[in-house]
Amino acid sequence: MNKNLEAMRHSCEHVLHQALQKLYPEIKAAMGPAIEEGFYMDFEYDGKISAEDFPKIEAEMLKVIKAKLPFKKETISISEARKIFANNPYKQEWLGEIEDKDKKPTVYWTGDKFVDLCAGPHVTSTGQIGPFKLLSVAGAYWHGDEKNKMLTRIYGTCFPTQKELDEFLETQEEAKTRDHRKLNQNLKIYMVSDDTGQGLITLLPNGAIIAQELEKWAIETENKWGYVRVYTPHIVPEKLFRISGHVPYYVPSMFPPMRMAEKNKEESEVFYIKPMNCAGHHMVYKSEPRSYRDLPLRIAEYGTVYRYEQSGELHGMMRVRGPIHQNDAHIFCTEEQAEEEFQKVMELHQYYYDKLGLDKKDYYLSFAVRDPENKEKFIGGDMLWDKAEAIALKFIKKTKIPYQIEAGGAAFYGPKIDFNIKTVTGKAFSASTNQLDFFLPKAFGLTYIDKDGKEKIPVCIHRAPLGAHVRFIAFLMEHFAGNFPTWLTPVQVKVLPITDRNLDYAQQVFAGLKDAGLRAEIVDRNETLQAKIRDAQLEKVAYMLIVGDKEQEDQSVSIRKRNGKDLGLLKIEEFIKDTKKEIEEKNIN
Amino acid sequence: MNKNLEAMRHSCEHVLHQALQKLYPEIKAAMGPAIEEGFYMDFEYDGKISAEDFPKIEAEMLKVIKAKLPFKKETISISEARKIFANNPYKQEWLGEIEDKDKKPTVYWTGDKFVDLCAGPHVTSTGQIGPFKLLSVAGAYWHGDEKNKMLTRIYGTCFPTQKELDEFLETQEEAKTRDHRKLNQNLKIYMVSDDTGQGLITLLPNGAIIAQELEKWAIETENKWGYVRVYTPHIVPEKLFRISGHVPYYVPSMFPPMRMAEKNKEESEVFYIKPMNCAGHHMVYKSEPRSYRDLPLRIAEYGTVYRYEQSGELHGMMRVRGPIHQNDAHIFCTEEQAEEEFQKVMELHQYYYDKLGLDKKDYYLSFAVRDPENKEKFIGGDMLWDKAEAIALKFIKKTKIPYQIEAGGAAFYGPKIDFNIKTVTGKAFSASTNQLDFFLPKAFGLTYIDKDGKEKIPVCIHRAPLGAHVRFIAFLMEHFAGNFPTWLTPVQVKVLPITDRNLDYAQQVFAGLKDAGLRAEIVDRNETLQAKIRDAQLEKVAYMLIVGDKEQEDQSVSIRKRNGKDLGLLKIEEFIKDTKKEIEEKNIN
Repeated sequence: MNKNLEAMRHSCEHVLHQALQKLYPEIKAAMGPAIEEGFYMDFEYDGKISAEDFPKIEAEMLKVIKAKLPFKKETISISEARKIFANNPYKQEWLGEIEDKDKKPTVYWTGDKFVDLCAGPHVTSTGQIGPFKLLSVAGAYWHGDEKNKMLTRIYGTCFPTQKELDEFLETQEEAKTRDHRKLNQNLKIYMVSDDTGQGLITLLPNGAIIAQELEKWAIETENKWGYVRVYTPHIVPEKLFRISGHVPYYVPSMFPPMRMAEKNKEESEVFYIKPMNCAGHHMVYKSEPRSYRDLPLRIAEYGTVYRYEQSGELHGMMRVRGPIHQNDAHIFCTEEQAEEEFQKVMELHQYYYDKLGLDKKDYYLSFAVRDPENKEKFIGGDMLWDKAEAIALKFIKKTKIPYQIEAGGAAFYGPKIDFNIKTVTGKAFSASTNQLDFFLPKAFGLTYIDKDGKEKIPVCIHRAPLGAHVRFIAFLMEHFAGNFPTWLTPVQVKVLPITDRNLDYAQQVFAGLKDAGLRAEIVDRNETLQAKIRDAQLEKVAYMLIVGDKEQEDQSVSIRKRNGKDLGLLKIEEFIKDTKKEIEEKNIN
Repeated sequence: MNKNLEAMRHSCEHVLHQALQKLYPEIKAAMGPAIEEGFYMDFEYDGKISAEDFPKIEAEMLKVIKAKLPFKKETISISEARKIFANNPYKQEWLGEIEDKDKKPTVYWTGDKFVDLCAGPHVTSTGQIGPFKLLSVAGAYWHGDEKNKMLTRIYGTCFPTQKELDEFLETQEEAKTRDHRKLNQNLKIYMVSDDTGQGLITLLPNGAIIAQELEKWAIETENKWGYVRVYTPHIVPEKLFRISGHVPYYVPSMFPPMRMAEKNKEESEVFYIKPMNCAGHHMVYKSEPRSYRDLPLRIAEYGTVYRYEQSGELHGMMRVRGPIHQNDAHIFCTEEQAEEEFQKVMELHQYYYDKLGLDKKDYYLSFAVRDPENKEKFIGGDMLWDKAEAIALKFIKKTKIPYQIEAGGAAFYGPKIDFNIKTVTGKAFSASTNQLDFFLPKAFGLTYIDKDGKEKIPVCIHRAPLGAHVRFIAFLMEHFAGNFPTWLTPVQVKVLPITDRNLDYAQQVFAGLKDAGLRAEIVDRNETLQAKIRDAQLEKVAYMLIVGDKEQEDQSVSIRKRNGKDLGLLKIEEFIKDTKKEIEEKNIN
């Protein structure tokens, strides 16, 4: 976000604060930053504010803006500040932090009646704030911690021009209709409930079809690209996670342990349900002596992992606790082979994205490196990290894919190279993560005998181009607004007889479709054609085949796409041939 | 086993005891029954007895047999018995049990020097004992409990005739070479080690190929048979297992729990890694209102379950803790539909077995019912059980497949109908388990609206025709002695160039095979053809294609099967065509 837009939005948040203070004098403001899509403000309030109150609040905000009040910065002493915000424990907490850093607090005045503790910057007057809108209200914990008090959060946004605001609001509306949780009501892709465990996804038959098709595709593709596959256990002994460093580095993201001593005192093992497949694949590598002739060894698995996420962070299929079916692999290679292998991983991503119709403009890389301020969160020492980061950066540059650097985002064992995809609503989403790893192969004692007869340590590239199934399916749902390409559509064809008179012929058409291996259904209930079409459209069936007397006579079908487009009459064999070709080629329709 | 054979074998065990007592006077005999394949004897001995000592022991046994000593039964008082076996704590323990039951102990004399506490029966004289052989020595815990002392166990057998003994020993030898753990050394199907957790199987690339092929086959088949598929979480909240009754009935077979409170005090949920898929599938059924039109609803999943087995019970891939990839499904239907659905499940089994070349003689059903003496181990009450067992028995009789009744073997929620397959070495093995269940649908509150508008409870058929992947693969390994049908063989074709001169042509052949989708490898190392063939045979590659100057000139290949049979020269396209057909038809070769 550019600095000017940020200052304007942050200023708009001060205006919101001022308006709320007037309408609800008892509120205690906690914080209020500008964000990617606007701004928000968190505050303590014992009453209830809902979207119905927005017009009133917006009217009050407009008054402040029209008054063109100047923003004025002032540096004051801690004790003065403590007096001004005497009734606000949040501001007192901020002041404590400022005091600890031995700094002086700054406040911003809006005109001469409203003041807030703030580092700025701001626009010079409220008159410079462009068209704005309050968007939603939600609950939020102070510091994002569930143990703290629940605050009220109001989201809003503002833009330099009305046109930009309107466009933004339109995209927001579009995003709402494309929300995978909303689409799921008709598409029945998944279910999640407290009964089966929060954040734990069950893929219903329609979702299972999509997962299976993706899995089949990935397995076939990666077979061709020289991967071998394994099945490793879902539970892993703690001792292996100590070697890999997951214990202790990754424990916060892991489910609680299972202690075998509870079953039998003789067994001391502690198991974790795995959050990653690394340990299992390293053990497969280690299962026999390896030579340079065996490398690169690309060990792939549709591994299923589980991660502990705070319950407040869970979001449909986008942020889950499990099961995360991961299109995962670990490539073990010599240091000399690493560049080519890395390049191939990037190409594999592009192959997948191309097939799904994603444009090169729609994705970019983020290069997540170690946080130099918090080295203790990363394992392996300076030398390994400097080397891994330098090599990874060199590789990234060669791909010519645009990239951003993200300090502190690395995996605890190595730098991460993530693919971020922009959804049609403009939001970026981390679709796949890859790591260049010099640490784990060493930790697990992996070796190979090189041409010169010497024992050497392989490099490991971690990669998962289709990421987590559930997340990727959620993305595809939103990307295609539920209109999956035919090869991924759960019900590809639905046969709709116009009247009961056509039922026998419809059954014959249906049998032909099933024989051809298409995922077909037939509507044999006594309903109006209108109703049958409406249901099929809600389910986003790829093709509706309407059969009446005319079609019956011609041994043909009338074809209608889910977008309502009429494709006319076609012989049934021709329709089957065309559709099978479309599916085989994985066309985007 | 017939009574005479049992008496003879048990008598032979007394002779072994007598011989051991003479050679190792300090032993303390614990127990010694006749079993399916012979007999064994457990005893305490601080020294070491190995198979090397068998000739000496057998010679001593032969003396006793040749002496034709009479067996004589005598009923004595507890106090007399306690005196006779004064130095043997195991016999004292037996005597305690006899005393508790207020019975009188019986002893058997062999001649007048050797006596043992024994209920009999025996043959009348040692001279009636047929040809015998000691087989192996092993450790065994007293009462099978790891907390007790480790005893020495000697296995032996005897038969009425030398011919029968010889046949048995031959089958034993065959069984040893077919042991999947032994075959695994060359075939590299799986690995298991304490490092990755005892009883937890990792399928290596070759095993993963077999698992994937079986999975693909089952999914395609069951699609055609009208199943839908789901993916449910691997971890299930305790509250669901309380509804299903797994807690408390199945807890001994479950892994220890994961307690979410360890992550966050606000979360009270306790999760178990699932030992069965029932709960998840019942919740899928429950996810929306159902009508009679939706039934039967056949919900299938390659569910992965984990079970806690005592470490002493673990055995390669045959008896594991996990991951148990189960070709599982739950069929929800009306009571009227149950018979037809059950019949179809039986037919599905037969379809799978036919395809794998199993003869109808090779399998039988066991009908496991509730133990009337231990009703508390079974949930649901008399009425439900009587009904379920009566209906199941009626269905079983209709299949005309031979069956045995097994009292007490039922699942805690319903009678079990298991398919038992006899392996080529004659051992029976439980390959698949099915249940007819009136309890769980009721417990989960499942309903459907029937034609008459009334709410009714569906019946559930649990079924898993290919059982657990790892176990089924172990069975197939032993059944085929590692010579899997080509469609299941990890490496289907191996190209062996006779000299380096033929390498280019070999590469061309290899590329053709890969393009055709065959799992092919090429041996490009500089080794003798002899060595190349030997390695390929050890790996049990289905076809070896030998290419030399002659083949190169003809653009053909010389084909050799893994059994050494020479199939002669063939054009490469013809070989590909034939082999693809063989794979597609899943032929047994």
